[in-house]
Amino acid sequence: MPDHTPEQIDRAVTTAAAAADAWARTTPQTRAALLRGLADALEAERETLVPLADAETSLGAARLNGELDRTAFQLRGFADQVLAGAPFMMTDDTAVPGPPPAGRPRLTRVRVPVGPVAMFAASNFPFAFSVLGGDTASALAAGCPVVVKAHPGHPELSRAVATLAQRVVAAQGLPAGVFGMVEGAAAAVGVQLVRHPLIAAVAFTGSYRGGSALQREANERPRPIPFYGELGAINPVVALPAAIAAGGAALAATLAGSITLGCGQFCTSPGVLIVHDDAASQAFVQQLAEALGAATPHRMLHAGIRAGFDAGVMRMQQHRGVRVLAAPEHGETAPRPRLFATDAASFIESEALHEEVFGPSCLVVTVKSPDETLAVLQAVQGSLTVTLWGAEADTADNRPLIRAAERIAGRVLFAGVPTGVAVTAAQQHGGPWPASTQPFTTSVGYAAMDRFLRPVALQDAPAWLIEAKGQA
Amino acid sequence: MPDHTPEQIDRAVTTAAAAADAWARTTPQTRAALLRGLADALEAERETLVPLADAETSLGAARLNGELDRTAFQLRGFADQVLAGAPFMMTDDTAVPGPPPAGRPRLTRVRVPVGPVAMFAASNFPFAFSVLGGDTASALAAGCPVVVKAHPGHPELSRAVATLAQRVVAAQGLPAGVFGMVEGAAAAVGVQLVRHPLIAAVAFTGSYRGGSALQREANERPRPIPFYGELGAINPVVALPAAIAAGGAALAATLAGSITLGCGQFCTSPGVLIVHDDAASQAFVQQLAEALGAATPHRMLHAGIRAGFDAGVMRMQQHRGVRVLAAPEHGETAPRPRLFATDAASFIESEALHEEVFGPSCLVVTVKSPDETLAVLQAVQGSLTVTLWGAEADTADNRPLIRAAERIAGRVLFAGVPTGVAVTAAQQHGGPWPASTQPFTTSVGYAAMDRFLRPVALQDAPAWLIEAKGQA
Repeated sequence: MPDHTPEQIDRAVTTAAAAADAWARTTPQTRAALLRGLADALEAERETLVPLADAETSLGAARLNGELDRTAFQLRGFADQVLAGAPFMMTDDTAVPGPPPAGRPRLTRVRVPVGPVAMFAASNFPFAFSVLGGDTASALAAGCPVVVKAHPGHPELSRAVATLAQRVVAAQGLPAGVFGMVEGAAAAVGVQLVRHPLIAAVAFTGSYRGGSALQREANERPRPIPFYGELGAINPVVALPAAIAAGGAALAATLAGSITLGCGQFCTSPGVLIVHDDAASQAFVQQLAEALGAATPHRMLHAGIRAGFDAGVMRMQQHRGVRVLAAPEHGETAPRPRLFATDAASFIESEALHEEVFGPSCLVVTVKSPDETLAVLQAVQGSLTVTLWGAEADTADNRPLIRAAERIAGRVLFAGVPTGVAVTAAQQHGGPWPASTQPFTTSVGYAAMDRFLRPVALQDAPAWLIEAKGQA
Repeated sequence: MPDHTPEQIDRAVTTAAAAADAWARTTPQTRAALLRGLADALEAERETLVPLADAETSLGAARLNGELDRTAFQLRGFADQVLAGAPFMMTDDTAVPGPPPAGRPRLTRVRVPVGPVAMFAASNFPFAFSVLGGDTASALAAGCPVVVKAHPGHPELSRAVATLAQRVVAAQGLPAGVFGMVEGAAAAVGVQLVRHPLIAAVAFTGSYRGGSALQREANERPRPIPFYGELGAINPVVALPAAIAAGGAALAATLAGSITLGCGQFCTSPGVLIVHDDAASQAFVQQLAEALGAATPHRMLHAGIRAGFDAGVMRMQQHRGVRVLAAPEHGETAPRPRLFATDAASFIESEALHEEVFGPSCLVVTVKSPDETLAVLQAVQGSLTVTLWGAEADTADNRPLIRAAERIAGRVLFAGVPTGVAVTAAQQHGGPWPASTQPFTTSVGYAAMDRFLRPVALQDAPAWLIEAKGQA
């Protein structure tokens, strides 16, 4: 299938723009019905969609069924949020008579759907971060039409899900422009979408390189628009001696499971392990190496991602100051997990070691003191997550460690592994650069809607308008 | 006084960074005490500060006393917000047992002060948008140290206010880095500040040109940071026939007062008036021209701003399709207000007419239909405000008009004039590009704090940490 032509892309956007006003004015009931209808349709077509996804991504039926469940759960969760009134919340300040600064008119702060959203699907979550994933669900919930840029890694699945979505939109009597999709492997397709004057915001999940390039396009438009990019991270795990003593080999196995989950193709995959320079910690690293050696990941998503992984592994192997802990035979079809080791000083001074290796690979950084841990975290600068094992107690060492983690991450874990991102109101998936381009926003969880609702203060607004905004 | 040297600027930022952790961890009481102490000190030194401000800005004692009142009111308002817990609010999702997607760990969404904020003072509000203005107040309230870049338009006042602030910081036993200031007329001073690796966010109020240049610097850092720029607007006023019939000459006088307020040097100054093509509306325009002719504004802030106004007036006068309605003698020391007129088609097709003329000038756009009004507003693209006079009723003409206004503005007024921005929780001062660089945020009102508080999700956090975050 050839790339969509400039005319097709323009038509998709203008159709979305034509639907924007009507969709922005829908009742909570109408909006929730679409989100739930999409969830129902995904589940109804599970038997068709999962095999299609597996053939195109190699992720396996178990994982893909779980991902479809999550995607439907998420659509219904946003429906609940809409019915609970989240997009229609307002702050209403009554008028105060008298001169300023205390005197004031009535001001009512509402939120207005921003307009058509361009949504770039990711390759590594063919359901949850693709056509009907979190970005689409949150934009629709916010009252914005969506134009999806399909990921070329799973074209048949994307078409099947888009067809399903368009059928639900039509069945509910909604304008076709509420949901549209364009296709194309060429960068020009995405660039045209981001540059289109009628696109009001962009949501992107993918590589640092692709995301940075599209962000530049968004910033350089005659009228710049928000670019919400989630560009990956190295997700440090700090394993303090107490946690290692308590967790032992089981903890090492848990970590190996997180590193190899989905063949390491998670934006929250732990890419750095920070341990102390003591015998128990180094034994833990050995247990991790053994657990990784026993793991048998599936194939990667496509040849380009595999080539990227092999290049990243080569970069590590050849890096001065990095030792190879697990360097198994080169996997023919599936890659073998890798484990590397270095010291704090080498890590801090080398920017190359702060770059994500997308795939089942982890770099162990051995530190000699709590202060070195802080310095290693500071060198990371920005990450989706930091995991702190053994930092639960309120101590003089733990307090600065927690602050250092908060400073660089959108999510700080005190237990468990960073892979697996719950869809809740409190979730924050997005951290300081380079993890995301707008670290004050999240692409997972119900606060994701906020990205598409711009605040407007209505001054001395008539009662009927305030009532309509509240959808009460 | 020469520009601050690179060493002085670096010292100001590193001192702020050294204070960041301690200030972020202050109790609500400590933070509120500083904000109230600053308000008290400003009021106590009123008799010194207002004459200093008047000598440097020509804005007059009445206005400057009012502005000092507003600045103190604002500092105390943020103190109240801090005591009410606004920066410490959290979303706490309890754990749900069972497998995902419904099962989940406990997630607690908190907000973390972003770190040292570089704050660029404006020339046109020497108190309210300068050294201790809204940006400083909101950053301090959020728990971030501030490094002010003083505006060279009022250097003596800036130094006096900075000295006062540093005295209050010291008297309260706080680290000196909580508040700092650098000076310099050269662009390099601001650029160094924005590029400094320890600066975490930038707040700017000023010109489109200066703001765009600094935003580029913020985006092109190795680690980009949020740039919150408020760059001005043309603030259309739509005067519908019903409002003109009801308001008459008094309404024209009110509008003339808003256009000439502070010699037109307000970012919310009404620069475009949209009226219908009927006799009463054109009579209203004539009344406006007369009221403007009778107005006697004071001098502008400085020679550069005056030169910019004269150039803008020249641009209007020479523009094809623009008629001159009020072209009085050239004022020797103070400029004379100007009124120009054009038709919808000329306005829509010429980008030059969408540019702000900073000063007492307004362009009347006559429309032939409600649809032409929508097209004129759409051509404006982004503005801090849109004022709709006579659009209170729920009619088929008013509904799309209100939507068109919401689409391009951060504040939509149904009565009164756009100059004068109340400091409340509901306020939104910031609209789509080019009005502001981050139109989802506000630089006036209590939501201004949100710009400096980055969300972080704590997963399975210990109880003591959640309690400390809540400051309960």
